[in-house]
Amino acid sequence: MTIPTGHPIATAELFKDAFRTHPAGIAVITAQSVDGPVGLTASSVSSVSAEPPVLAFSVSTASSSAAALIAADTLVVHLLGADQVGIAQLFATRGADRFGGAVDWRPLPTGEPLLVEAPWALRCRILHRLPVGGSMILAAEVEAIEQGDGGAAGAPLVYHNRSYHRLSDRSLLD
Amino acid sequence: MTIPTGHPIATAELFKDAFRTHPAGIAVITAQSVDGPVGLTASSVSSVSAEPPVLAFSVSTASSSAAALIAADTLVVHLLGADQVGIAQLFATRGADRFGGAVDWRPLPTGEPLLVEAPWALRCRILHRLPVGGSMILAAEVEAIEQGDGGAAGAPLVYHNRSYHRLSDRSLLD
Repeated sequence: MTIPTGHPIATAELFKDAFRTHPAGIAVITAQSVDGPVGLTASSVSSVSAEPPVLAFSVSTASSSAAALIAADTLVVHLLGADQVGIAQLFATRGADRFGGAVDWRPLPTGEPLLVEAPWALRCRILHRLPVGGSMILAAEVEAIEQGDGGAAGAPLVYHNRSYHRLSDRSLLD
Repeated sequence: MTIPTGHPIATAELFKDAFRTHPAGIAVITAQSVDGPVGLTASSVSSVSAEPPVLAFSVSTASSSAAALIAADTLVVHLLGADQVGIAQLFATRGADRFGGAVDWRPLPTGEPLLVEAPWALRCRILHRLPVGGSMILAAEVEAIEQGDGGAAGAPLVYHNRSYHRLSDRSLLD
Protein backbone atom coordinates (compact mmCIF):
# COMPACT_ATOMS: atom_id res chain seq x y z
CA MET A 1 0.00 0.00 0.00
CA THR A 2 1.50 3.33 -1.02
CA ILE A 3 0.39 6.90 -0.72
CA PRO A 4 2.13 8.79 -3.52
CA THR A 5 3.06 12.03 -1.83
CA GLY A 6 4.03 13.74 -5.04
CA HIS A 7 0.59 13.00 -6.45
CA PRO A 8 -1.88 13.15 -3.59
CA ILE A 9 -5.19 11.57 -4.43
CA ALA A 10 -8.19 12.50 -2.34
CA THR A 11 -11.16 12.68 -4.66
CA ALA A 12 -14.65 13.15 -3.31
CA GLU A 13 -15.56 9.74 -4.74
CA LEU A 14 -12.74 7.92 -2.96
CA PHE A 15 -13.52 9.78 0.26
CA LYS A 16 -17.15 8.66 0.05
CA ASP A 17 -16.03 5.09 -0.68
CA ALA A 18 -13.88 5.10 2.45
CA PHE A 19 -16.61 6.40 4.76
CA ARG A 20 -19.21 4.10 3.23
CA THR A 21 -17.22 1.29 4.87
CA HIS A 22 -17.07 3.11 8.23
CA PRO A 23 -20.01 2.04 10.43
CA ALA A 24 -21.91 4.54 12.56
CA GLY A 25 -24.59 4.75 15.20
CA ILE A 26 -27.73 6.62 14.22
CA ALA A 27 -29.41 9.62 15.83
CA VAL A 28 -32.34 11.85 14.98
CA ILE A 29 -31.80 15.46 15.98
CA THR A 30 -34.79 17.74 16.42
CA ALA A 31 -35.42 21.37 17.21
CA GLN A 32 -38.27 23.82 17.33
CA SER A 33 -37.90 26.43 14.58
CA VAL A 34 -39.99 29.52 13.89
CA ASP A 35 -41.74 27.44 11.22
CA GLY A 36 -42.43 24.50 13.53
CA PRO A 37 -40.65 21.30 14.47
CA VAL A 38 -37.66 20.18 12.37
CA GLY A 39 -35.48 17.09 12.48
CA LEU A 40 -33.02 14.99 10.55
CA THR A 41 -31.18 11.70 10.78
CA ALA A 42 -27.46 11.97 11.55
CA SER A 43 -24.71 9.36 11.53
CA SER A 44 -22.04 11.69 12.90
CA VAL A 45 -23.07 12.09 16.55
CA SER A 46 -20.26 11.31 18.98
CA SER A 47 -19.38 11.92 22.58
CA VAL A 48 -16.75 14.61 23.11
CA SER A 49 -16.58 15.00 26.87
CA ALA A 50 -18.45 13.53 29.83
CA GLU A 51 -17.64 16.32 32.29
CA PRO A 52 -19.15 18.60 31.17
CA PRO A 53 -21.34 16.38 28.96
CA VAL A 54 -20.73 17.56 25.39
CA LEU A 55 -21.48 15.87 22.08
CA ALA A 56 -20.67 16.85 18.50
CA PHE A 57 -22.05 16.17 15.04
CA SER A 58 -21.99 17.66 11.58
CA VAL A 59 -24.66 18.46 9.03
CA SER A 60 -24.62 19.57 5.45
CA THR A 61 -25.88 23.14 5.31
CA ALA A 62 -27.75 22.44 2.06
CA SER A 63 -31.02 21.26 3.63
CA SER A 64 -33.60 23.51 5.22
CA SER A 65 -33.89 21.16 8.21
CA ALA A 66 -30.15 21.46 8.82
CA ALA A 67 -30.30 25.23 8.51
CA ALA A 68 -33.05 25.33 11.13
CA LEU A 69 -31.08 23.06 13.49
CA ILE A 70 -27.99 25.23 13.11
CA ALA A 71 -30.01 28.35 13.90
CA ALA A 72 -31.57 26.85 17.04
CA ASP A 73 -30.36 27.50 20.56
CA THR A 74 -31.36 24.07 21.82
CA LEU A 75 -31.74 20.61 20.27
CA VAL A 76 -32.81 17.12 21.22
CA VAL A 77 -30.44 14.35 20.12
CA HIS A 78 -32.24 11.00 20.06
CA LEU A 79 -29.95 7.96 20.00
CA LEU A 80 -31.80 5.22 18.14
CA GLY A 81 -31.90 1.44 18.46
CA ALA A 82 -32.76 -1.22 15.90
CA ASP A 83 -36.46 -0.99 16.77
CA GLN A 84 -36.40 2.64 15.59
CA VAL A 85 -35.10 2.01 12.07
CA GLY A 86 -38.39 3.33 10.71
CA ILE A 87 -37.81 6.65 12.46
CA ALA A 88 -34.26 6.79 11.09
CA GLN A 89 -35.55 6.21 7.57
CA LEU A 90 -38.37 8.74 7.87
CA PHE A 91 -36.05 11.51 9.06
CA ALA A 92 -33.59 10.69 6.26
CA THR A 93 -36.23 10.88 3.52
CA ARG A 94 -36.25 14.13 1.59
CA GLY A 95 -39.65 15.79 1.56
CA ALA A 96 -41.22 13.36 4.04
CA ASP A 97 -43.81 14.70 6.50
CA ARG A 98 -41.72 13.98 9.57
CA PHE A 99 -44.07 15.31 12.23
CA GLY A 100 -47.37 14.45 10.53
CA GLY A 101 -48.30 11.49 12.66
CA ALA A 102 -46.11 8.63 11.41
CA VAL A 103 -43.90 9.02 14.48
CA ASP A 104 -45.07 9.50 18.04
CA TRP A 105 -43.79 12.84 19.33
CA ARG A 106 -44.73 15.67 21.62
CA PRO A 107 -43.21 19.03 22.42
CA LEU A 108 -41.15 19.28 25.58
CA PRO A 109 -42.12 22.04 28.02
CA THR A 110 -39.13 23.90 26.55
CA GLY A 111 -40.58 23.53 23.04
CA GLU A 112 -38.31 21.02 21.32
CA PRO A 113 -39.95 17.96 19.72
CA LEU A 114 -39.38 14.76 21.69
CA LEU A 115 -39.59 11.45 19.80
CA VAL A 116 -41.07 9.37 22.57
CA GLU A 117 -39.95 5.98 21.23
CA ALA A 118 -36.24 6.86 21.32
CA PRO A 119 -34.21 4.86 23.85
CA TRP A 120 -32.25 7.98 24.78
CA ALA A 121 -33.08 11.67 24.38
CA LEU A 122 -30.44 14.29 25.18
CA ARG A 123 -31.59 17.90 25.31
CA CYS A 124 -28.61 20.07 24.36
CA ARG A 125 -27.61 23.69 24.05
CA ILE A 126 -25.37 24.54 21.08
CA LEU A 127 -21.94 25.71 22.23
CA HIS A 128 -20.01 26.03 18.96
CA ARG A 129 -20.74 26.20 15.23
CA LEU A 130 -17.71 25.54 13.02
CA PRO A 131 -18.30 25.98 9.28
CA VAL A 132 -16.29 23.59 7.06
CA GLY A 133 -16.94 23.75 3.34
CA GLY A 134 -20.64 23.14 2.78
CA SER A 135 -21.07 21.63 6.23
CA MET A 136 -21.22 22.74 9.83
CA ILE A 137 -19.71 21.00 12.84
CA LEU A 138 -21.76 21.61 15.98
CA ALA A 139 -20.74 21.02 19.56
CA ALA A 140 -23.54 21.01 22.12
CA GLU A 141 -23.65 20.73 25.89
CA VAL A 142 -26.17 18.22 27.20
CA GLU A 143 -28.52 19.78 29.75
CA ALA A 144 -30.98 16.94 30.32
CA ILE A 145 -30.92 13.21 29.59
CA GLU A 146 -33.79 10.80 29.74
CA GLN A 147 -33.85 7.10 29.04
CA GLY A 148 -36.95 5.78 27.27
CA ASP A 149 -39.01 2.84 28.35
CA GLY A 150 -37.31 0.49 25.90
CA GLY A 151 -34.02 1.90 27.05
CA ALA A 152 -30.65 0.32 26.68
CA ALA A 153 -32.21 -3.15 26.54
CA GLY A 154 -33.06 -2.74 22.83
CA ALA A 155 -30.73 -3.97 20.09
CA PRO A 156 -28.24 -1.37 18.81
CA LEU A 157 -28.69 0.13 15.33
CA VAL A 158 -25.74 0.58 12.96
CA TYR A 159 -25.59 2.27 9.57
CA HIS A 160 -23.09 0.89 7.06
CA ASN A 161 -22.83 1.08 3.29
CA ARG A 162 -26.33 2.54 2.91
CA SER A 163 -27.88 -0.27 4.96
CA TYR A 164 -28.97 -0.73 8.55
CA HIS A 165 -27.66 -3.47 10.81
CA ARG A 166 -28.69 -4.80 14.20
CA LEU A 167 -25.98 -5.79 16.68
CA SER A 168 -26.49 -8.91 18.77
CA ASP A 169 -24.53 -11.59 20.58
CA ARG A 170 -24.04 -13.25 17.20
CA SER A 171 -22.16 -10.21 15.81
CA LEU A 172 -19.81 -10.13 18.82
CA LEU A 173 -16.12 -10.68 18.18
CA ASP A 174 -14.10 -12.70 20.67
CA MET B 1 -40.81 9.54 29.02
CA THR B 2 -40.36 12.98 30.54
CA ILE B 3 -37.53 15.44 30.67
CA PRO B 4 -38.12 17.59 33.74
CA THR B 5 -37.09 21.02 32.56
CA GLY B 6 -37.16 22.47 36.05
CA HIS B 7 -34.74 19.81 37.18
CA PRO B 8 -32.43 19.04 34.29
CA ILE B 9 -30.50 15.85 34.80
CA ALA B 10 -27.36 15.33 32.75
CA THR B 11 -24.85 13.59 34.95
CA ALA B 12 -21.58 12.31 33.55
CA GLU B 13 -22.67 8.79 34.44
CA LEU B 14 -25.94 9.01 32.54
CA PHE B 15 -24.16 10.61 29.58
CA LYS B 16 -21.68 7.72 29.49
CA ASP B 17 -24.55 5.22 29.76
CA ALA B 18 -26.23 6.81 26.74
CA PHE B 19 -23.13 6.77 24.54
CA ARG B 20 -22.22 3.26 25.62
CA THR B 21 -25.31 2.18 23.69
CA HIS B 22 -24.34 4.26 20.62
CA PRO B 23 -22.31 2.11 18.19
CA ALA B 24 -19.31 3.51 16.34
CA GLY B 25 -16.81 2.64 13.66
CA ILE B 26 -13.21 2.40 14.75
CA ALA B 27 -10.12 4.25 13.53
CA VAL B 28 -6.50 4.46 14.55
CA ILE B 29 -5.02 7.90 14.09
CA THR B 30 -1.25 8.29 13.85
CA ALA B 31 1.23 11.13 13.56
CA GLN B 32 4.93 11.67 13.66
CA SER B 33 5.89 13.67 16.76
CA VAL B 34 9.27 15.07 17.79
CA ASP B 35 9.55 12.02 20.06
CA GLY B 36 8.67 9.53 17.35
CA PRO B 37 5.50 7.91 16.04
CA VAL B 38 2.31 8.25 18.08
CA GLY B 39 -1.17 6.84 17.63
CA LEU B 40 -4.44 6.10 19.34
CA THR B 41 -7.74 4.35 18.75
CA ALA B 42 -10.71 6.65 18.15
CA SER B 43 -14.43 5.91 17.93
CA SER B 44 -15.40 9.48 17.00
CA VAL B 45 -14.18 9.77 13.40
CA SER B 46 -16.87 10.94 11.00
CA SER B 47 -17.15 12.42 7.56
CA VAL B 48 -17.95 16.14 7.53
CA SER B 49 -17.72 17.09 3.86
CA ALA B 50 -16.80 15.27 0.65
CA GLU B 51 -15.91 18.38 -1.35
CA PRO B 52 -13.48 19.36 0.01
CA PRO B 53 -12.88 16.02 1.79
CA VAL B 54 -12.92 16.84 5.51
CA LEU B 55 -13.30 14.56 8.54
CA ALA B 56 -13.61 15.30 12.24
CA PHE B 57 -12.93 13.52 15.49
CA SER B 58 -12.35 14.32 19.14
CA VAL B 59 -9.76 13.22 21.66
CA SER B 60 -9.34 13.66 25.37
CA THR B 61 -6.41 15.96 25.95
CA ALA B 62 -5.32 13.95 28.97
CA SER B 63 -3.11 11.44 27.13
CA SER B 64 0.35 12.18 25.78
CA SER B 65 -0.56 10.48 22.48
CA ALA B 66 -3.53 12.79 22.07
CA ALA B 67 -1.43 15.82 22.90
CA ALA B 68 1.06 14.82 20.21
CA LEU B 69 -1.72 14.30 17.64
CA ILE B 70 -3.21 17.69 18.45
CA ALA B 71 0.18 19.35 18.02
CA ALA B 72 0.84 17.71 14.65
CA ASP B 73 0.30 19.38 11.29
CA THR B 74 -0.61 16.16 9.54
CA LEU B 75 -2.17 12.84 10.57
CA VAL B 76 -3.07 9.49 9.09
CA VAL B 77 -6.59 8.29 9.90
CA HIS B 78 -6.83 4.51 9.41
CA LEU B 79 -10.40 3.16 9.14
CA LEU B 80 -10.32 -0.38 10.52
CA GLY B 81 -12.23 -3.54 9.67
CA ALA B 82 -13.01 -6.58 11.80
CA ASP B 83 -9.72 -8.23 10.81
CA GLN B 84 -7.90 -5.33 12.49
CA VAL B 85 -9.47 -5.66 15.94
CA GLY B 86 -6.02 -6.48 17.34
CA ILE B 87 -4.71 -3.14 16.08
CA ALA B 88 -7.70 -1.35 17.60
CA GLN B 89 -7.06 -3.01 20.96
CA LEU B 90 -3.31 -2.33 20.90
CA PHE B 91 -3.77 1.37 20.21
CA ALA B 92 -6.40 1.59 22.95
CA THR B 93 -4.18 -0.02 25.59
CA ARG B 94 -2.53 2.42 27.96
CA GLY B 95 1.22 2.03 28.06
CA ALA B 96 1.39 -0.50 25.21
CA ASP B 97 4.39 -0.41 22.85
CA ARG B 98 2.35 0.52 19.81
CA PHE B 99 5.16 0.77 17.26
CA GLY B 100 7.43 -1.91 18.70
CA GLY B 101 6.75 -4.58 16.14
CA ALA B 102 3.34 -6.01 17.07
CA VAL B 103 1.80 -4.08 14.17
CA ASP B 104 3.17 -3.80 10.66
CA TRP B 105 3.91 -0.14 9.92
CA ARG B 106 6.29 2.05 8.00
CA PRO B 107 6.80 5.79 7.73
CA LEU B 108 5.29 7.52 4.73
CA PRO B 109 7.66 9.66 2.66
CA THR B 110 6.05 12.59 4.49
CA GLY B 111 6.96 11.03 7.85
CA GLU B 112 3.64 9.88 9.31
CA PRO B 113 3.36 6.23 10.40
CA LEU B 114 1.27 4.11 8.03
CA LEU B 115 -0.37 0.97 9.43
CA VAL B 116 -0.11 -1.16 6.33
CA GLU B 117 -2.91 -3.60 7.23
CA ALA B 118 -5.57 -0.89 7.42
CA PRO B 119 -8.26 -1.13 4.72
CA TRP B 120 -8.23 2.64 4.31
CA ALA B 121 -5.60 5.24 5.19
CA LEU B 122 -6.41 8.93 4.88
CA ARG B 123 -3.53 11.38 5.20
CA CYS B 124 -4.95 14.63 6.58
CA ARG B 125 -3.89 18.16 7.43
CA ILE B 126 -5.46 19.63 10.58
CA LEU B 127 -7.72 22.59 9.74
CA HIS B 128 -9.31 23.41 13.10
CA ARG B 129 -8.76 22.65 16.78
CA LEU B 130 -11.76 23.37 18.99
CA PRO B 131 -11.19 22.91 22.73
CA VAL B 132 -14.24 21.66 24.66
CA GLY B 133 -13.76 20.92 28.34
CA GLY B 134 -10.97 18.39 28.67
CA SER B 135 -11.24 17.37 25.03
CA MET B 136 -10.39 18.72 21.61
CA ILE B 137 -12.47 18.49 18.46
CA LEU B 138 -10.28 18.36 15.36
CA ALA B 139 -11.31 18.91 11.76
CA ALA B 140 -8.83 17.78 9.13
CA GLU B 141 -8.74 18.02 5.35
CA VAL B 142 -7.88 14.76 3.61
CA GLU B 143 -4.99 15.18 1.19
CA ALA B 144 -4.36 11.59 0.14
CA ILE B 145 -6.42 8.40 0.34
CA GLU B 146 -5.25 4.89 -0.24
CA GLN B 147 -7.18 1.67 -0.11
CA GLY B 148 -5.33 -1.31 1.33
CA ASP B 149 -5.08 -4.71 -0.23
CA GLY B 150 -7.89 -6.14 1.90
CA GLY B 151 -9.88 -3.04 1.11
CA ALA B 152 -13.59 -2.65 1.43
CA ALA B 153 -14.08 -6.38 1.00
CA GLY B 154 -13.29 -7.02 4.68
CA ALA B 155 -16.00 -7.21 7.31
CA PRO B 156 -16.80 -3.91 9.08
CA LEU B 157 -15.77 -3.39 12.71
CA VAL B 158 -18.12 -1.78 15.24
CA TYR B 159 -17.50 -0.77 18.84
CA HIS B 160 -20.45 -0.94 21.22
CA ASN B 161 -20.74 -1.18 24.98
CA ARG B 162 -17.00 -1.87 25.44
CA SER B 163 -17.08 -4.76 22.94
CA TYR B 164 -16.26 -5.21 19.28
CA HIS B 165 -18.72 -6.49 16.71
CA ARG B 166 -18.42 -7.67 13.13
CA LEU B 167 -21.14 -6.72 10.64
CA SER B 168 -22.27 -9.31 8.12
CA ASP B 169 -25.28 -10.28 6.04
CA ARG B 170 -26.69 -11.87 9.17
CA SER B 171 -26.74 -8.54 11.04
CA LEU B 172 -28.57 -6.80 8.16
CA LEU B 173 -32.03 -5.39 8.88
CA ASP B 174 -34.68 -5.69 6.19
